Amino acid sequence: MMPTVVVDGPPMKSIEQKRTMVQRLTDAAAEVYGYDKMKISVIIRENPPENVGRGGRLIADLRGE
Amino acid sequence: MMPTVVVDGPPMKSIEQKRTMVQRLTDAAAEVYGYDKMKISVIIRENPPENVGRGGRLIADLRGE
Amino acid sequence: MMPTVVVDGPPMKSIEQKRTMVQRLTDAAAEVYGYDKMKISVIIRENPPENVGRGGRLIADLRGE
Amino acid sequence: MMPTVVVDGPPMKSIEQKRTMVQRLTDAAAEVYGYDKMKISVIIRENPPENVGRGGRLIADLRGE
Amino acid sequence: MMPTVVVDGPPMKSIEQKRTMVQRLTDAAAEVYGYDKMKISVIIRENPPENVGRGGRLIADLRGE
Amino acid sequence: MMPTVVVDGPPMKSIEQKRTMVQRLTDAAAEVYGYDKMKISVIIRENPPENVGRGGRLIADLRGE
Repeated sequence: MMPTVVVDGPPMKSIEQKRTMVQRLTDAAAEVYGYDKMKISVIIRENPPENVGRGGRLIADLRGE
Repeated sequence: MMPTVVVDGPPMKSIEQKRTMVQRLTDAAAEVYGYDKMKISVIIRENPPENVGRGGRLIADLRGE
Repeated sequence: MMPTVVVDGPPMKSIEQKRTMVQRLTDAAAEVYGYDKMKISVIIRENPPENVGRGGRLIADLRGE
Repeated sequence: MMPTVVVDGPPMKSIEQKRTMVQRLTDAAAEVYGYDKMKISVIIRENPPENVGRGGRLIADLRGE
Repeated sequence: MMPTVVVDGPPMKSIEQKRTMVQRLTDAAAEVYGYDKMKISVIIRENPPENVGRGGRLIADLRGE
Repeated sequence: MMPTVVVDGPPMKSIEQKRTMVQRLTDAAAEVYGYDKMKISVIIRENPPENVGRGGRLIADLRGE
């Protein structure tokens, strides 16, 4: 099958950072599965700090302290 | 492990509503798992009504009737 | 249960295209499960080309070549 | 990009039912996106009735009544 | 729309624990969205400790120390 | 926030392969985000070949030819 790697994290700083993320995650998955890199898809989800919580509090609030 | 709660729903009305959502979902998950609240992450996904369907019709269309 | 179909793809061109997507995916899932269409939810996720990778490269970069 | 369709539903009855599900969801997504079918991936997630809830109650309990 | 809450955590201990999880997450989501409880779905995903990692190590290995 | 990497792929061959997958994906995500590794979670989802399709056909069928 075609593995898919989805990373849910904060907004990214630049397209260069996204480029490296896709490259690095793809290399990792392809090597460990023993698959050709062309079989690996990556999706980056950027979540704003007011839509993510940890320990019951919004990241947006934790940062503001 | 660190449980993650992801809620896929409509756009939210205010940061206060998001704050309460994260608080309430975290409390629920932490109590039921018997975990410290700091181990629980929450992600809120806000889906526009033209990207969600029910019964084969867009929410955006159902509302317009 | 209420099945949910989530489709992760590129940005869509129009609300008409989303309408057809929801209709078609719902019909397919309802018929195969043997469920009433009202039990099927669909979520369309639109991913910008700089947030998706294939073969270790961003879709945004693959298109630019 | 390579769209992925994920369907979260109940356990399926046979491999034939899964075969039809993949076929039907792929046809729908490929036609609406205007993509070749080879670009579409489908993942079927089968959820036991004790792991799914609706209206605050387990599907396993709703069925037992 | 019909919000869906998905919780990804460890294997659960009993159906009673799942029952309470669904009840609690549904109550939280319904109240915060201001929706009828019947509109909320919950999916519990149970992940074995050898399929989850934190800080680069499997939960299965962290526990064994 | 605490990024989560979810990889949806085929069944894995050994716990050693899972160990390496978690290690490699965590290293990649931590370095690119510039985060401490302890902030990164990974979930491996193993999908049986009869639950995944590509080009409208089950992986289970593609392999059998």
